[in-house]
Amino acid sequence: MNQNRNVLLTPGPTPVPPEALKILSQPIFHHRTPQYRKVFGRVSLGLQEVFQTKSNVFTLTSSGTGAMEAAVVNFLSPGDTILVAHAGKFGERWLELGKSYGMNVLSVSAPYGEAIDPAEIRKVLQVNPFTKAVYTTHCETSTGVTYDIQSIAEMVSKSNAILVVDAISGLGADPLPQDEWKVDVVVSGSQKALMLPPGLAFISASERALALNKTSTCQKYYCDLKLYQKAFLDSDTPFTPALTLVLALEETLKLIQVKGLRSHLNETARLADATRAALRAIKLELFAKSHPSNAVTAVKVPNGIDGEKLIKIMRDEKGVTMAGGQGSMKGKIFRIAHMGYITKEDLTIGLQILCETLSALGFQASSEEAVHYFNETYKRPTAKEVYR
Amino acid sequence: MNQNRNVLLTPGPTPVPPEALKILSQPIFHHRTPQYRKVFGRVSLGLQEVFQTKSNVFTLTSSGTGAMEAAVVNFLSPGDTILVAHAGKFGERWLELGKSYGMNVLSVSAPYGEAIDPAEIRKVLQVNPFTKAVYTTHCETSTGVTYDIQSIAEMVSKSNAILVVDAISGLGADPLPQDEWKVDVVVSGSQKALMLPPGLAFISASERALALNKTSTCQKYYCDLKLYQKAFLDSDTPFTPALTLVLALEETLKLIQVKGLRSHLNETARLADATRAALRAIKLELFAKSHPSNAVTAVKVPNGIDGEKLIKIMRDEKGVTMAGGQGSMKGKIFRIAHMGYITKEDLTIGLQILCETLSALGFQASSEEAVHYFNETYKRPTAKEVYR
Repeated sequence: MNQNRNVLLTPGPTPVPPEALKILSQPIFHHRTPQYRKVFGRVSLGLQEVFQTKSNVFTLTSSGTGAMEAAVVNFLSPGDTILVAHAGKFGERWLELGKSYGMNVLSVSAPYGEAIDPAEIRKVLQVNPFTKAVYTTHCETSTGVTYDIQSIAEMVSKSNAILVVDAISGLGADPLPQDEWKVDVVVSGSQKALMLPPGLAFISASERALALNKTSTCQKYYCDLKLYQKAFLDSDTPFTPALTLVLALEETLKLIQVKGLRSHLNETARLADATRAALRAIKLELFAKSHPSNAVTAVKVPNGIDGEKLIKIMRDEKGVTMAGGQGSMKGKIFRIAHMGYITKEDLTIGLQILCETLSALGFQASSEEAVHYFNETYKRPTAKEVYR
Repeated sequence: MNQNRNVLLTPGPTPVPPEALKILSQPIFHHRTPQYRKVFGRVSLGLQEVFQTKSNVFTLTSSGTGAMEAAVVNFLSPGDTILVAHAGKFGERWLELGKSYGMNVLSVSAPYGEAIDPAEIRKVLQVNPFTKAVYTTHCETSTGVTYDIQSIAEMVSKSNAILVVDAISGLGADPLPQDEWKVDVVVSGSQKALMLPPGLAFISASERALALNKTSTCQKYYCDLKLYQKAFLDSDTPFTPALTLVLALEETLKLIQVKGLRSHLNETARLADATRAALRAIKLELFAKSHPSNAVTAVKVPNGIDGEKLIKIMRDEKGVTMAGGQGSMKGKIFRIAHMGYITKEDLTIGLQILCETLSALGFQASSEEAVHYFNETYKRPTAKEVYR
């Protein structure tokens, strides 16, 4: 392992900025105090800005999956019909959750690497007008594809169903103006574009969703949003929070506020575009057939190259950590994140090490060319700079 | 607020040692790596030593309550009969959890400040031989009382029920040799005697408990121990862990290992004894009628003193944080922790500030006397130094 280099380019955890690390190294204090409640109040407001919603954003101490579970058990009753629109590992988690909680689960899918077709969702909803909720994914971290949430939401908002979006990796990286697009529930986590270690998860809920919450009979306790809503009135959580992460979240939210959410999203878009241009320049094929995410780029491992070995050499010998493929994608793709606190410099080094390692393994890739295309593309304002 | 002083004497979070704070300020790395798995493997073994069990100890990313929920939904099926033995706020949480998940909940209780009588549990189990599980508390943090888990376990182990113990605040402070005492399930959390920020919870399960897990039909996903067991085989967790807390846990477990669990428990017992002696010396009344916990001492607020004001002045003006009473105990008691990384020096300062503040509020308390009795008692080996 290269002791002098620690470039983390995985789609969660992502690098934590020094401002947040500093907070994490401070002596701890108690959370049932005005001091903590003030911070938690500010953090909750800051989260609303990133979620672009007027709804409350509740903070859970859990992995992102804990908030996904909250998004199932709080709005449904056993036997309810739900529609899961999925094309990757994390979309499939909605299927598993729905089945675990006794739902009647309808499904719309697309092959890995492709986006969900909103028209397919419409068809299923037309045939099943009693569908209670549609569950889908903002950025499917396992394939690097974003779905057209705006079109999906446009359609679902006209149906009887609420729309629940897993934006664990996408929030703060790809645009997702919750209220403007009429998304009912957005779920996210701390260790992606919010630039923190894992341990916190978030869930926002629209009025429509909260109305369903009132009649939901799913059994729940730890993630019962009624308890979170009640505690929220006192700027509090029902159970002891991972409070040092909340304190650090105030710092990372400040970084986004100072920059402005729009600039933050645009910078992420530029880094993503530049990364993709560099990868194409060295003749690598992107895994996303369309709608590549700005959070993470998935890349096909070239023929004849051992994908797991590639990741291992870069990580253990050169200090650059990218992510491999998950499940059936193992060894077939690798993934480079470009969100949160990941910088132009991190990506430049990452691309250089990638080229160096690919070449050593027998796939010639010019580091100069990759960096040249990266820089040239980064300089140009991208077509996507229309984010609000 | 006294900027130079930050003495934290609350029963969770407790002070975090510098060795752990240092780890928390390091750049983060990825958890699906051999590097992390090695740490997690060592931490899991270290937890077994503190739990004093050969059973696996599973690590959840949640508050302690998340692991309490896991201890309900993993071993039961809706409609099962359970017995909750409670005499405080956290015991009542088992009642709430049992009811939330549709159990037939029997109850044995005692007034706040008293311990559960094991004979009462026996009586209920005799009349209800199909009781599936007994839920109780090791140290009831809200009252500062420990229950006689050894006697309770002795009896429950002869019944058809498993015994589940909430040791969130007691583990590592009061003795609880899980296997020797035949406790089936022990639940704990990171922010008490394990000296970490909140965010991790732990649950160990005996063979008897795991047998119940196989037939349990409670709906679950995020805290489904089958998923944790499977991941455990690869030194892994099913969902992204709060990995920086796991890394820091390795450091705090090392502190206990170096000292030895027995010495660690004995030191906690000495601090607890000394604290109680000091409080008695200044004519304060302990809330625990018997079985005071070594984790935390609850003290009655003297007549005529505003308990909430007392806590507030000490915290905001003098930099010493103790905990107030919870729920119906609010304003009536306050609580001083003496577990984990809390030192003799912390407690000496805490007692001095307590005397100073009580005196200012009109209850004369001699700081010299308190510290004298504290020191004299600390010097003597306590009667309780029999912990293994």
